[in-house]
Amino acid sequence: MKYVRMAELSETTGIPVPTIKYYMREGLVAPGRPTGRNQADYSDEHVRRLKLVRALVEYGDLSIAVIRDLMARIDNPELEAFDLLGAAQKTVTPRREPRSGPYKDRAEDRLHELLARRGWRIRTGDPAYRTAVGVLATLEEVGREDMLDALDAYADAAEQIAEADLRLLGGDVSDRERAVEIVVIGTSVGDTLIASLRRLAQATVGERLYT
Amino acid sequence: MKYVRMAELSETTGIPVPTIKYYMREGLVAPGRPTGRNQADYSDEHVRRLKLVRALVEYGDLSIAVIRDLMARIDNPELEAFDLLGAAQKTVTPRREPRSGPYKDRAEDRLHELLARRGWRIRTGDPAYRTAVGVLATLEEVGREDMLDALDAYADAAEQIAEADLRLLGGDVSDRERAVEIVVIGTSVGDTLIASLRRLAQATVGERLYT
Repeated sequence: MKYVRMAELSETTGIPVPTIKYYMREGLVAPGRPTGRNQADYSDEHVRRLKLVRALVEYGDLSIAVIRDLMARIDNPELEAFDLLGAAQKTVTPRREPRSGPYKDRAEDRLHELLARRGWRIRTGDPAYRTAVGVLATLEEVGREDMLDALDAYADAAEQIAEADLRLLGGDVSDRERAVEIVVIGTSVGDTLIASLRRLAQATVGERLYT
Repeated sequence: MKYVRMAELSETTGIPVPTIKYYMREGLVAPGRPTGRNQADYSDEHVRRLKLVRALVEYGDLSIAVIRDLMARIDNPELEAFDLLGAAQKTVTPRREPRSGPYKDRAEDRLHELLARRGWRIRTGDPAYRTAVGVLATLEEVGREDMLDALDAYADAAEQIAEADLRLLGGDVSDRERAVEIVVIGTSVGDTLIASLRRLAQATVGERLYT
């Protein structure tokens, strides 16, 4: 393996030296191989990890604490790929925790029925589950329960999207850094892409209907 | 039409008197019918408008300036329904403006080709169009151009979602306040719902593949 000095590490990754040192202090990137007092060498592994960290900071909109937790999971060989990816996915899940009350109870029943009917996995503590309950409760609270009529169409679409997502990830998830990057960046940036395509499609369908 | 005093208006809508007065000062809600010095009566129209404004503030996450602009459009009888709904939709479109450069040019070509092939309306100044270009450029910039393979699957899903959205809106958009509420709340809250259903579907499909 080829080793380089800090200056070259910075040049290769395009990340300033103080930022690299900050990532190391925060435990996101391992220290280098010591070569003398206050000197160290860095390998390709460092280049790779630094690029992942930067991508997660910039495009995943994640905090340092969340990234540190993810890196620890990548580095833990005993953690199964599926659990690693589940943890990665949870970091980029929007949160809209439901307020307690009758709206929430009805929303939870409704979501549970939908998931059971479709044969989806049900874990009531999952942030995505809590968020979906919160949204359904909100819709009823603001008097827009008519939107619930679209729930099955949305779930159909979500299933197609998820299948495309998993095709991207591919059958081989032994490259754990690549897999985490695809899940975190693909999911966060992908939400924005899907939202903008939804608007573009609405404009097209709407023009057909209303003009 | 039945008229009520400010205290009753507050009670009916659940909005505190100072907040109602603030909305009136900001031009989001019309003043009442004067009944004396410093006194006025309010109609059902006021109740309706106040509920819409509150829903947009709370759930649409919109600024007062944006809501004021939307209210002016609702109140302008010369504005066609389609243009009103287009304006409403633009207020809740996520923005990720692309940086100039080769990534952006390629992203724009790619999006243009996709929309033309699907027969979607192309307006290059549309915020949703700019956002989609920005996302596609970002994916290439971070070395995740493999995600572009999912673009057609995402567009298919977006089209189904948009058709469900327009079915909710219905053929009759003469009730302009209802239509704006459905577009703004349905779109913003709907994005969160679709994102959470995507996560739930990913967990189900992923479990099938990786365990």
